[in-house]
Amino acid sequence: MLDVCLLGCGGMMPLPYRYLTSLMLRYNGNNVLIDCGEGTQVALKKKGWSPKPVGLMLFTHFHADHISGLPGFLLTLGNAERTEPVLMVGPKGLTKVVKSLLIIAPELPFPIRYKELSGDTEFSWEGYRITAFRVQHNITCYGYSINIDRAGKFDAAKAKELNIPLPFWNRLQKGETITDEKGQTFSPDMVIGPPRKGIKVSYATDTRPTNNIIEHASHSDLFICEGMYGEEEKLDKAKENKHTMFLEAAAMAKQAEVGELWLTHFSPSLNNPKEYMAKVREIFPKAEAGKDGKTKELSFEKEE
Amino acid sequence: MLDVCLLGCGGMMPLPYRYLTSLMLRYNGNNVLIDCGEGTQVALKKKGWSPKPVGLMLFTHFHADHISGLPGFLLTLGNAERTEPVLMVGPKGLTKVVKSLLIIAPELPFPIRYKELSGDTEFSWEGYRITAFRVQHNITCYGYSINIDRAGKFDAAKAKELNIPLPFWNRLQKGETITDEKGQTFSPDMVIGPPRKGIKVSYATDTRPTNNIIEHASHSDLFICEGMYGEEEKLDKAKENKHTMFLEAAAMAKQAEVGELWLTHFSPSLNNPKEYMAKVREIFPKAEAGKDGKTKELSFEKEE
Repeated sequence: MLDVCLLGCGGMMPLPYRYLTSLMLRYNGNNVLIDCGEGTQVALKKKGWSPKPVGLMLFTHFHADHISGLPGFLLTLGNAERTEPVLMVGPKGLTKVVKSLLIIAPELPFPIRYKELSGDTEFSWEGYRITAFRVQHNITCYGYSINIDRAGKFDAAKAKELNIPLPFWNRLQKGETITDEKGQTFSPDMVIGPPRKGIKVSYATDTRPTNNIIEHASHSDLFICEGMYGEEEKLDKAKENKHTMFLEAAAMAKQAEVGELWLTHFSPSLNNPKEYMAKVREIFPKAEAGKDGKTKELSFEKEE
Repeated sequence: MLDVCLLGCGGMMPLPYRYLTSLMLRYNGNNVLIDCGEGTQVALKKKGWSPKPVGLMLFTHFHADHISGLPGFLLTLGNAERTEPVLMVGPKGLTKVVKSLLIIAPELPFPIRYKELSGDTEFSWEGYRITAFRVQHNITCYGYSINIDRAGKFDAAKAKELNIPLPFWNRLQKGETITDEKGQTFSPDMVIGPPRKGIKVSYATDTRPTNNIIEHASHSDLFICEGMYGEEEKLDKAKENKHTMFLEAAAMAKQAEVGELWLTHFSPSLNNPKEYMAKVREIFPKAEAGKDGKTKELSFEKEE
């Protein structure tokens, strides 16, 4: 249903064995990319997914490790013959930053649209409902929650009982209210149950832990969160540069009651993130260290 | 003496198995980088060479595959604690392009200096003598020749014969003309033989073959030249987009009477450049297909 791929899991600088952190989401032929550091296009090529369906790019902030791959990514998107618009969303200043970078990609076969955030914001795009929320870094930075909503169940027995003509069923399912030629009105709430649990993925980096993250990540199926350092003695460094420790990410995952936690945005000094996962799992058992190309397919819950 | 490393050998876009074309030269603790596409800093890290001694960056032109890695490279140079200036050399417009890209690398601990070329130009930097020469691409583009010159041999027997005092020898060797207290003048030509053969490396991409390239590459020890396509049927494409074919590079190497030819800047469509090397070697036998990390140490000729 919703495919999620952590294309890279590095922070600060790309390494020969670790791409910079970025996330791709695939749903219904329309892809979303969050962050695009140097090498993201290569990570995507390695994964084997096409760049062409990427129509929405979300940026957390404008530090180079989150956006330096943009010109190359857009040129490759152009080479893949995308002509449909690309919407970019990010902190204030987005338009200026992107236009500056486009000096080396001046001709693209698709238009770019910009949406600059000013505070927590919800918007929809191609079947996705997205919430941008402020996090706490040393420059303006946002996290994102991506939701695939699921309508209530259509009650066919009830529709029959109410003698709703068959041709109306599909229209009611899509949320339309219909008045027939006799003046009789049928509304979706007559036959549609309460909204069912959808799919939710949340993403937060680079930041100190905050309540706003916990609130927005609440009950995510998958929470992808910065874990800059595993070594507990690096807490002061994390505080100084506004990053999140492994154990702090675990504590947020627990409070937000998420389904699963993946850590990412590892410091280049951190060779083996797995070493620190035992302690993470003491706080939040369903936690994994991110890895380049780590993928999950998320589906709606099965019903009895 | 002079170490040369072809950090990557790809053109157009970086691939999981091929970095974008760039060249690093190491001489006497001062390094030169030619071109810096997306991923060049990773290729350098993989090679194991430090970025810190890079004080001169030469750009052939401003297509993204030759400069998109610049912001990340400079940030990594800053993290390596470089504080000495970095000189950048490239076509007109260089200052504007670099300053635009620096929007995502606004604070660097070293100053950047700019030298914009207007036509073939010779200049010196830290023991290197460099010639920039125009090539023929669809935007302004330069090739570069890098020379390490070698002075003539000091003739100790002659210095003794002429009764030149010993403390003057070293100064004469360095090119100084000296007048002693008796008014007697000693000049280098009295004891220094004619200049000896130095080391010369030439680099040309992206371009159609031209006489100017052949003249400037003349008698290079190593000529690193674009070979965009090996397949002969792609000649029209090469002509249209102003690139060089494998066989055309070989013909230039032959005419320029270079010591050795390395091909680079392979099209992403070219999976196995080695396949086409037999025909290349029919024209110019000392030819090799470039490879990421391909390295050579060039020394002055041994004397009897």
